[in-house]
Amino acid sequence: VVRTGRRRGEAGAAGTREGIAAAARAVFAERGFAEATIRAVAANARVDPALVHYYFGSKEQLFIAAMELPFDPAVVLPALLAGPREHIGERVVRFFLATWDRPEARHVLMGMMRSAVTDERAAAMLRGFIVREAIGRLVELLGVPDAELRATLVGSQVVGLAFARYIVRVEPLASAETETVVAAVAPTIQRYLTGDVSGSSPRG
Amino acid sequence: VVRTGRRRGEAGAAGTREGIAAAARAVFAERGFAEATIRAVAANARVDPALVHYYFGSKEQLFIAAMELPFDPAVVLPALLAGPREHIGERVVRFFLATWDRPEARHVLMGMMRSAVTDERAAAMLRGFIVREAIGRLVELLGVPDAELRATLVGSQVVGLAFARYIVRVEPLASAETETVVAAVAPTIQRYLTGDVSGSSPRG
Repeated sequence: VVRTGRRRGEAGAAGTREGIAAAARAVFAERGFAEATIRAVAANARVDPALVHYYFGSKEQLFIAAMELPFDPAVVLPALLAGPREHIGERVVRFFLATWDRPEARHVLMGMMRSAVTDERAAAMLRGFIVREAIGRLVELLGVPDAELRATLVGSQVVGLAFARYIVRVEPLASAETETVVAAVAPTIQRYLTGDVSGSSPRG
Repeated sequence: VVRTGRRRGEAGAAGTREGIAAAARAVFAERGFAEATIRAVAANARVDPALVHYYFGSKEQLFIAAMELPFDPAVVLPALLAGPREHIGERVVRFFLATWDRPEARHVLMGMMRSAVTDERAAAMLRGFIVREAIGRLVELLGVPDAELRATLVGSQVVGLAFARYIVRVEPLASAETETVVAAVAPTIQRYLTGDVSGSSPRG
């Protein structure tokens, strides 16, 4: 049996949307993203699985809603990849900075990073979601060799940027203008996604 | 009055090396790196400041010893910057991976990242040390424009790499060979340290 660990302010009544979200958080934390099922969430919330589908749609959408993720990779990634391929690094950095600059999104993302570094189960849950929903989609959309490695390299730079700029807040990066950060970091993301990452051709 | 928060296994007796290190951890946590003084550490450990100097040397060396940092930026940074400038990115990535691949070093660095994301005081302490000892030294040694920004960009990539490879352990980055990571990430560090970060010349 999974305890839901309800937070203050949650209605918590079985069958409410928030009651199901709380049950989902507990199931994802217990089993990780890959092993969690709509059926297990429904059992934990003591509702019919159809009600979970009705409120949230897919397991991915349930995860996003329950974790209050500020964006859905299924929506964002195709949009970022849709424009001119040679400016993809710039679009990724701009999207990332705009998201972290929204206080409520920053709050959620910081909470996720905090959980990931302090709790192995939370790290595993996040890993499962990232692998399937972010890396998996990116690999499909990009169509270049080494797409999985490229996706994780992008992740390493954007997470590190969040750490330095928004969490430890090291200057001058913490107060740098958006345009300064875009100019500095976009070429990194551009190379990770579309350039040479194997060192086989001249660096750039 | 600052409590020392002694850990199991520490002798804790005033005047011992470990007693002073414990007092130092408490003073750094309380005041941050910049505001902490050898005098305050000595007072908290109830010893003469000369004894603190005798055991640890400078405040920077005391911090490194008390936090069990796996390397001293005052030693490592000049060594990394000493070789051919065009391979500095590669040397930085190799040093970074070799350090994280040592279990006891990884343990300490993960502890510091954990503290920084969960505790604003720990983040401030780390920030103070990074600004003075890592960024300050790098700026002096590099002698290029925008050296502070460059140093923080390097920090963002190496911390994010640690997060993705060693903490969340996202594949294939987590299991990638050292040479694969060096080939992928060294050009990023190289550009941050010696290349164009302002977007004013063609990307590369």
